[in-house]
Amino acid sequence: MTAVTLQDVATEAGVSLATASRALHGGTRVVTAELRERVEQAARDLGYTSHGPAQALARATTPVVGLIVHDIADPYFSAMAIGAMRAAHESGLLVLVCNTFRDPALELDYVARLRAQRARGVLLFGSGFTERSYQSKLHHELDLLAGLGGRVACISPHGFATDAVLPEHRDGGRLAAGHLAALGHRRIGVISGPANLLVNQERLRGFRDQLRALDIELPQEQIAKADFTREGGRAAAVELMGRVPGLTAIFALNDVMAIGVLAALRDELKLSVPDDVSVVGFDDIALTVDVQPALSTVHLPLEEIGRHGMRLLLEEAPTGTRTVRVPASLVHRESSAPPRD
Amino acid sequence: MTAVTLQDVATEAGVSLATASRALHGGTRVVTAELRERVEQAARDLGYTSHGPAQALARATTPVVGLIVHDIADPYFSAMAIGAMRAAHESGLLVLVCNTFRDPALELDYVARLRAQRARGVLLFGSGFTERSYQSKLHHELDLLAGLGGRVACISPHGFATDAVLPEHRDGGRLAAGHLAALGHRRIGVISGPANLLVNQERLRGFRDQLRALDIELPQEQIAKADFTREGGRAAAVELMGRVPGLTAIFALNDVMAIGVLAALRDELKLSVPDDVSVVGFDDIALTVDVQPALSTVHLPLEEIGRHGMRLLLEEAPTGTRTVRVPASLVHRESSAPPRD
Repeated sequence: MTAVTLQDVATEAGVSLATASRALHGGTRVVTAELRERVEQAARDLGYTSHGPAQALARATTPVVGLIVHDIADPYFSAMAIGAMRAAHESGLLVLVCNTFRDPALELDYVARLRAQRARGVLLFGSGFTERSYQSKLHHELDLLAGLGGRVACISPHGFATDAVLPEHRDGGRLAAGHLAALGHRRIGVISGPANLLVNQERLRGFRDQLRALDIELPQEQIAKADFTREGGRAAAVELMGRVPGLTAIFALNDVMAIGVLAALRDELKLSVPDDVSVVGFDDIALTVDVQPALSTVHLPLEEIGRHGMRLLLEEAPTGTRTVRVPASLVHRESSAPPRD
Repeated sequence: MTAVTLQDVATEAGVSLATASRALHGGTRVVTAELRERVEQAARDLGYTSHGPAQALARATTPVVGLIVHDIADPYFSAMAIGAMRAAHESGLLVLVCNTFRDPALELDYVARLRAQRARGVLLFGSGFTERSYQSKLHHELDLLAGLGGRVACISPHGFATDAVLPEHRDGGRLAAGHLAALGHRRIGVISGPANLLVNQERLRGFRDQLRALDIELPQEQIAKADFTREGGRAAAVELMGRVPGLTAIFALNDVMAIGVLAALRDELKLSVPDDVSVVGFDDIALTVDVQPALSTVHLPLEEIGRHGMRLLLEEAPTGTRTVRVPASLVHRESSAPPRD
């Protein structure tokens, strides 16, 4: 392939080299819409490759922002991502989504890659991990990014100060506990997600605090650990109900695990929901109304949270770091009811 | 921020500048693992920014591949994306996911962006659009990418020759028709996706061909159009059942719309599935077993399809373009049964 030069494009469009450069690459002096269109048409006709990396060197940032998510197959993350992408597209920015599989090392790799590509900013979804070494490495990476003019924002806590959208995870945990207690449940099991996730810790803490305030015990044996997946929730529910047979309710720390709990109760344990066991989830992902029975859960406005996060990333802060708190609410559907007796 | 140079890193690690460069940026001569680790540690300690765009200029490609998807919130795409990402990570590559919202112009923008960033390759998910102008523009973009050493692969047809994984969409349509016909259905409605998507056309064609082979009519009024979303499927089902009240079965061209159809029948039309109306979907996304009733559908091995696509992208082709055909199969669950009489 013979390389097409910017001069070729300028000649084709009948403009100076400087005008062609300004039309395609921007700059301080403005080009009329008519001229820009003519140059762009010439560039398209010739198949001119405006050299991204070379431009990035000259311009410091590229019109790209990165989203770092734990698991894009979890509707919790994809719904937030859709909200963030809509907001970014309204600002003419492209969005690159990076999936970490909840691997802190991969998260650091992606942030470094986005920094090397001079992304305009990075929005971190899902919570950070509790490990100090991860937190300090990530903090370091993000400082480097900021030093190059990149912006950073988080959704949910990450263990350091930055612009952040903070859904009220702890309040959500409290609401779930209050709901089940008000229905009359006293022996409640919990399906927890990965212990090293800050979001998981907050949800569990809120749940535990509220039960304690209501004088309801939550012994450690009533808590089973899983991995925020449907399959993990299913297996944990079977194990938990085998270990503590008298439970009348299960609170799963996200909806995807709660859907696994419903499957375990229905297919393996042959227990009826909510007659034998009530189930409450967390997040209110799109399909909670379609599962059987429709899932009671803690609602977070996921698309809106994603939008807020992107706006924090794109709007220059007046001073200091900004925090947007997003309240949780409880949605009572069919999977929770008073215990049998 | 004072810029840390590669020389600073070399000094800190106690190696020559050439060795530091080779350890961090690769090259023809190999560096021992011990040396590489020492240099990388020094780079981390000093916060050295290996300059991505500058490197990209020198090296032609970056260790990044792009995935272009229509709608990452649709489990059809996220499941394929997860499969592709696992395969990419095994090869040490980072994956940037680009969501087009089914907007052909945005798809072209993303491909151009990935080209400008010297991505190693682009994997196009979901089908192409039928419009000739889009096809020729995309083809042109991908030619430019290939001219720079980038690789291209597709999942599902895109209207031009390239390495491709081709799930048997048409066979899947045939299977759905055969299944409903074998149960005894003769008046079958169809919820179709966007008419300009090649995948949609193939699925519908297979369904129609098989009905014709079985002498079952499918008049145009029994086909309702939607947009591959749950809400679209729900609204289309209400409209279709109002227009053609005698239908005993509905085939939705993807599962997400089929879940909307189940919701419409249950909540708005007060019809029982499968007693009053049978419903069949397409894709076999993860949650089809959790909806009520469990959805009969055409199964595609989604994660495997994503993996195949990434392998096509990463493995050098011996000669010519390669095609991997992936068969569809029918999964009979609870949402389909013989009609009432």
